[in-house]
Amino acid sequence: MPIHLSTLQTDFERRFAGMLAMKREDATDVNEAVASIISEVRTRGDAALVDLTARFDRLDLTPGSLIFSKEEIAAETARVSPEDRAALSLAANRIRAYHARQMPEGLSWTDPEGATLGWRWTPVSAAGLYVPGGQASYPSSVLMNAIPARVAGVERLVICVPTPDGIVNPLVLLAADLAGVDEIYRIGGAQAIAAMAYGTETIRPVDKITGPGNAYVAAAKRQVFGRVGIDMIAGPSEVLIIAQGAQNPEWLALDLLAQAEHDADAQAILITPDEPLARAVVAEVERILPGLPRAEVAAASWRDYGTVIVTRDLDEAAALSDRIAPEHLELCVDDPEALAGRTHHAGAIFLGGWTPEAVGDYVSGPNHVLPTARSARFSSGLSVMDFLKRTTIARMSPAALAAIGPAAVRLAASEGLSAHGMSISARLATLNGEG
Amino acid sequence: MPIHLSTLQTDFERRFAGMLAMKREDATDVNEAVASIISEVRTRGDAALVDLTARFDRLDLTPGSLIFSKEEIAAETARVSPEDRAALSLAANRIRAYHARQMPEGLSWTDPEGATLGWRWTPVSAAGLYVPGGQASYPSSVLMNAIPARVAGVERLVICVPTPDGIVNPLVLLAADLAGVDEIYRIGGAQAIAAMAYGTETIRPVDKITGPGNAYVAAAKRQVFGRVGIDMIAGPSEVLIIAQGAQNPEWLALDLLAQAEHDADAQAILITPDEPLARAVVAEVERILPGLPRAEVAAASWRDYGTVIVTRDLDEAAALSDRIAPEHLELCVDDPEALAGRTHHAGAIFLGGWTPEAVGDYVSGPNHVLPTARSARFSSGLSVMDFLKRTTIARMSPAALAAIGPAAVRLAASEGLSAHGMSISARLATLNGEG
Repeated sequence: MPIHLSTLQTDFERRFAGMLAMKREDATDVNEAVASIISEVRTRGDAALVDLTARFDRLDLTPGSLIFSKEEIAAETARVSPEDRAALSLAANRIRAYHARQMPEGLSWTDPEGATLGWRWTPVSAAGLYVPGGQASYPSSVLMNAIPARVAGVERLVICVPTPDGIVNPLVLLAADLAGVDEIYRIGGAQAIAAMAYGTETIRPVDKITGPGNAYVAAAKRQVFGRVGIDMIAGPSEVLIIAQGAQNPEWLALDLLAQAEHDADAQAILITPDEPLARAVVAEVERILPGLPRAEVAAASWRDYGTVIVTRDLDEAAALSDRIAPEHLELCVDDPEALAGRTHHAGAIFLGGWTPEAVGDYVSGPNHVLPTARSARFSSGLSVMDFLKRTTIARMSPAALAAIGPAAVRLAASEGLSAHGMSISARLATLNGEG
Repeated sequence: MPIHLSTLQTDFERRFAGMLAMKREDATDVNEAVASIISEVRTRGDAALVDLTARFDRLDLTPGSLIFSKEEIAAETARVSPEDRAALSLAANRIRAYHARQMPEGLSWTDPEGATLGWRWTPVSAAGLYVPGGQASYPSSVLMNAIPARVAGVERLVICVPTPDGIVNPLVLLAADLAGVDEIYRIGGAQAIAAMAYGTETIRPVDKITGPGNAYVAAAKRQVFGRVGIDMIAGPSEVLIIAQGAQNPEWLALDLLAQAEHDADAQAILITPDEPLARAVVAEVERILPGLPRAEVAAASWRDYGTVIVTRDLDEAAALSDRIAPEHLELCVDDPEALAGRTHHAGAIFLGGWTPEAVGDYVSGPNHVLPTARSARFSSGLSVMDFLKRTTIARMSPAALAAIGPAAVRLAASEGLSAHGMSISARLATLNGEG
């Protein structure tokens, strides 16, 4: 039974706050185990990677076979069907085209005082992408992480993907190939994160690590943060659908279930002012769910976290959506653009009934790595910006320093930083012929 | 004695790597103490803030006096001299003008398949700025944190600044006033961070917290991260000066000392192909240093971390600079623009001998909150972007879904996510008259 709320309930606020505060993730404390793995990789390098891969992935490697050779990649990717290859290419091309538009530009101008100011963007030199092994080894995630890095101009792009028992996902290798990845290592877990952050004899360190992973990978990313940059630590996924008008209840039910089938901790929420529509959608969910291959996962998610909220009107729906700040927001209403304008916090918005969220997971073009757990209030999805950094630039002319330097001298004095002031005063003295 | 290196030394690489790896900060482990303060504020709210402020700041408050009243702010800021007020206004205006140029624009386009794609930027709703008390209570930091938030369009802007023994810095209040801050609370430490992240009876929570602080504040920011966004955790400051040609050794020495006087952990580095210039600058540092009010701090920084590197040429200097990825990079050479083009990693660049780094700390316009400890390899200084987030937007026409949907269905199948595929297939079936 999903959670049923109505803004007409007298205790709605308490119930809604309870729903918002629900913890959907058990954070297992693996910090100590991860710290010891990182330290082992830092001390013993490749030998540690070989040992840890034998232990965790039941796979015997040598330092020389940590990396996939060009021949292996060619042989594995040759196994991909033409249909899968075409689908992956279409996705890669659309993701590349979308992200190319994100490239920001530098700027430079000279102000009336004669100060030339501006900034420039430069890419991170080397980036590493973690790809989980087994069930959650998603080729789409390879594209979503690797393509923005390439578009940003990252020179060296590395992937680590574990291959437990030696089982390789050829689609992951093909996705890496399509995205232009330079090196692929068959290692995983905290040891892969440590190798990318600190380097070993055969793996040069990178400057930024992105990509999803289990609790060990997440803890390792947190621990190496500072040494390298990391992307967000993603929580369980969620979708919020606001619906009204002539909507197809089956479509909406499938969109909710597409979220629920990800993971028992995923959350699917429907908000509508139309109670009969809410009932019809719930009936469709219950009709379709048992037949899904991942019925068990989807049923757990729907039972524990599924939520249906009936509101007085769309304004109320938009206000509740802002408080949830969903990762994915589907607006299945007559005028979705207008409703989008009345919301402020969401990772990605899908407009209208013909835009199921699943199309955004694969082929629409925008990134599918998005802020979860209400963090869309203050953060954004993955983009080329994650692989670029801004350097501010300033050049004073003597006249500019004469015009604005005295104010800096004054402020430095008020902060008790005298060498700051003197570094400006000495130049001003020269200008005034006192130097 | 600062560290003296020359790229002609046979063991230069080892020595340089040693310099790079120097730890300049003792990370005291205050995590437990901080966790207990946060939990106290979450449980007891205002009462905890009153108790903790009495204990740590020796100041008796009531829930009603946690906030500075308009009258107090007016009375305190009236004490500021006209000269200080003018200097602060000049700084505020220049910082505002620079950051206004950073505002990014949204974009929307329709591609040949009929998919309308794009993104929009929206501000964080509420931001909180931490300002340290006592010696490091810098009005310039208030401007550098608060103005970008205001320019970004943040609706509600809060400051927490401790006032130990009730001592207020009127310039901090004036800076907050000039920047348009809405609420100022006289609380500090981990309790202030907890109050801004979780809220109390009188302080509503914010979505993002920025600003510098001591080990307790830094640990508290790390602990509340996820609940709210935070800015970077700044380490000790550093400057790297690359010099060649007709440079004034006294100016360069003062620029190095301006860095060294910040903090005994700060680092000042000079790289030059001109050995006589290196000697002249070091002599100037030694001449000026003893006379500085903060001589003790500057001497410790210069002795422990000061570094002079003599290189064969400017190319070598630029390559070393990239490995250091300095927070502040001063290029005091004949053609600083050309040299800037040969560097890739720095928080901020100061071009030419008339642009001392100190002018950037106060009045040039760019932000002075910059990445330290080599993190300019992968991160940027504070900007309006820190107070904005991007929402991606997609709208499929039926034709667009027909064109690209089948590829998504294929990829969903390869990832074993059948409801994902069905959410698209059901729509395609309707389009094909099968629905």
